[in-house]
Amino acid sequence: MTRVYIKDIGKYSGQEIILQGWLYNKSSKGKLAFLQLRDGTGVIQCVVFKGDVSEEVFKLAETLPQESSFAVAGIVKEDKRSKLGFEIGVKNISLIRLAKDYPISPKEHGTAFLMDHRHLWLRSSRQTAILKIRDEIIFAIREYFRNNDFTLVDSPILTPAASEGTSTLFETDYFGQKAYLSQSGQLYGEAAAMALGKIYCFGPTFRAEKSKTRRHLTEFWMVEPEVAFNDLNDNMDLAEDFICYLVRQVLKNRRAELAVLERDISKLECARKPFPRITYTEAIEILNKKGNPTQWGGDIGGDEETLISREFDRPVIINRYPAAIKAFYMKRDPQDPKLALAMDVIGPEGYGEIIGGSVREEDYETLLARIKEQNLPVEAFDWYLDLRKYGGVPHAGFGMGIERFIAWICGVPHLRETIPFPRLMDRLKP
Amino acid sequence: MTRVYIKDIGKYSGQEIILQGWLYNKSSKGKLAFLQLRDGTGVIQCVVFKGDVSEEVFKLAETLPQESSFAVAGIVKEDKRSKLGFEIGVKNISLIRLAKDYPISPKEHGTAFLMDHRHLWLRSSRQTAILKIRDEIIFAIREYFRNNDFTLVDSPILTPAASEGTSTLFETDYFGQKAYLSQSGQLYGEAAAMALGKIYCFGPTFRAEKSKTRRHLTEFWMVEPEVAFNDLNDNMDLAEDFICYLVRQVLKNRRAELAVLERDISKLECARKPFPRITYTEAIEILNKKGNPTQWGGDIGGDEETLISREFDRPVIINRYPAAIKAFYMKRDPQDPKLALAMDVIGPEGYGEIIGGSVREEDYETLLARIKEQNLPVEAFDWYLDLRKYGGVPHAGFGMGIERFIAWICGVPHLRETIPFPRLMDRLKP
Repeated sequence: MTRVYIKDIGKYSGQEIILQGWLYNKSSKGKLAFLQLRDGTGVIQCVVFKGDVSEEVFKLAETLPQESSFAVAGIVKEDKRSKLGFEIGVKNISLIRLAKDYPISPKEHGTAFLMDHRHLWLRSSRQTAILKIRDEIIFAIREYFRNNDFTLVDSPILTPAASEGTSTLFETDYFGQKAYLSQSGQLYGEAAAMALGKIYCFGPTFRAEKSKTRRHLTEFWMVEPEVAFNDLNDNMDLAEDFICYLVRQVLKNRRAELAVLERDISKLECARKPFPRITYTEAIEILNKKGNPTQWGGDIGGDEETLISREFDRPVIINRYPAAIKAFYMKRDPQDPKLALAMDVIGPEGYGEIIGGSVREEDYETLLARIKEQNLPVEAFDWYLDLRKYGGVPHAGFGMGIERFIAWICGVPHLRETIPFPRLMDRLKP
Repeated sequence: MTRVYIKDIGKYSGQEIILQGWLYNKSSKGKLAFLQLRDGTGVIQCVVFKGDVSEEVFKLAETLPQESSFAVAGIVKEDKRSKLGFEIGVKNISLIRLAKDYPISPKEHGTAFLMDHRHLWLRSSRQTAILKIRDEIIFAIREYFRNNDFTLVDSPILTPAASEGTSTLFETDYFGQKAYLSQSGQLYGEAAAMALGKIYCFGPTFRAEKSKTRRHLTEFWMVEPEVAFNDLNDNMDLAEDFICYLVRQVLKNRRAELAVLERDISKLECARKPFPRITYTEAIEILNKKGNPTQWGGDIGGDEETLISREFDRPVIINRYPAAIKAFYMKRDPQDPKLALAMDVIGPEGYGEIIGGSVREEDYETLLARIKEQNLPVEAFDWYLDLRKYGGVPHAGFGMGIERFIAWICGVPHLRETIPFPRLMDRLKP
């Protein structure tokens, strides 16, 4: 008899096989017991008929507690009523380990309770579906960049410079020096783009923000492409093409998981080129027309993003922001130096900013002046300035916080479900 | 005229194109100037004939400093003498930015100097080649696990428990609590394997070790598969198959980069199944026969690994170590409880341990007793113990520090060249 995984069950129709896994759910009715076995690749119904098995095995089937581990030997039978198309006619069951009083029952639990049991909560079909979509998106990200000749350049987590103030940084002692956990790989990515042309960083980033909103994690993964010689239009094209690829891959490969999440697929199918592109100034006009009082020069926050996103059926790219509210390294618009050549991609359905990026200032003197203006420590940026001193070129890039992207794709409102072990202001365990 | 990348140059033979990049090197001879242009995808010779260009352009070509950025318009010409097969007959050059006094000249520099200029050193063809092989290996790792139905589960970096002592941990303040940077995702991976069956973690890990050897980084990337229901043989099979796949992909796709590194390919071609598998006891015998005095029960350190590796032409798997020198979570050998069902894969040519793994103890009572025996804080492991309480199953996994693997593949002795921005005890910048 062959040991098989549930996902491959269709290949064994009519054959006797062995499955190993955990009891997801069960019911019984007279001479029949129905065990839902999960093995990480799927869930299958195992039907135990009293006449087919020993008395002990039937009793085990009737009394087996949730999440007990066991092996089943049985025949793979076609069954049109099952989503999978197959069920198992059980011949034998051997218990691996009994699970008593599994804390997560099919009844409703509060979120705090589920988060305390995150190591077990992952076993639920909803959490499993989210994790598989996460896996799909992360692979698609890497595949996209590989297909488009980008080189992965892992930027460091431990960094010396508290380049933009230390208030939202996690600090650690590094053999007698202060080190900080990275908030972005961008500056390193720029160095690498000058070496390799097209690169991306992709790793965990950290923000010690005292924020408890559903859109904040203290530890999250960010992907950051950077391309030498790209301008703002190239950067917007790249972001658009990238997002469309990711959405397409999930729609192609993760239909079953989206169905588990009851995601409205039509909302994702809209995400096709071209994405609307509006200037910051136009965004403010939209807001004002809708009664939002944000003035030109003001920040476009979460509420404003939601208002704007409702105008469109797909992601919208807002570009050319007031330079005053954007980072020092962003290049000014040569047409209007009040503006920075920045862009944000706002997800549909109120999912907020999913990408933020810009063209970077490539001129040494301008960048140096900018650093001094903002009272940043020049010595912390000496190596970054070197990139302009030695063959600076126009370049642009962006960052995407992948948990926000996953939240949109999955249609889950809170980021805490989009990462296996979320870190929030009040949550460091398990 | 089309802007193209050097790697695609073959498609434009005979055509006039534009290239953008940096000056890697140059020479001139009478009426000819030879500019080596690099653009991150390759290096190409641009031949400037005085009669073909304006006086200014020829002067620029003769005097252009290393790493200046410029664009070239010219005709793609086949040239058998060039490695690439093509060169550019220059029609025009436009300077983007002049680089004065680029610090890394073609002469020899000390390592400390190069490491201080790591952000520029990345531009050298040797460093570029290593980074491209690193990218290839990382993609192959993810592709391997995807092809084999593993789900990626990113384990957290910020963790609450100092499970095995704090002396080699980086600590940070987490909103009033202590948090530590993760040394391994394994415990989280085990939780995920109970949910998803076959998983892998892949992220940065940290060791605050006061060690300055060539084989230590304080921050390095580790990939850790974990599989429910796998035993020691399955685990060894997986490690073997995994390594063979990675080597094969590099040999298939990165010949040019291996050639830049002057890597002896034949040493990599040997890495085929089956890998020799010896017990720890046999390993000690080999050592003793070769005059190394390590006693049974002693650690197999770097020197010993090198001695053992010289006996084989490919990676060797050492298994069944004395339980006393292995971690608390490792399952004992039912045949001999003095032994742990642990395994290490030792790279050839003295590159040392590239994989370490084991079967994990799945019994609740045994694991609890083990934790108490070793005076570990039980409360820190409550959630980890839950994995045994609720449907514990046999499972196994391993970890591979990818920089050590890259070092072997590239044939570079020091790990500092295998990661874009290495973190060493005395190096946190750039």
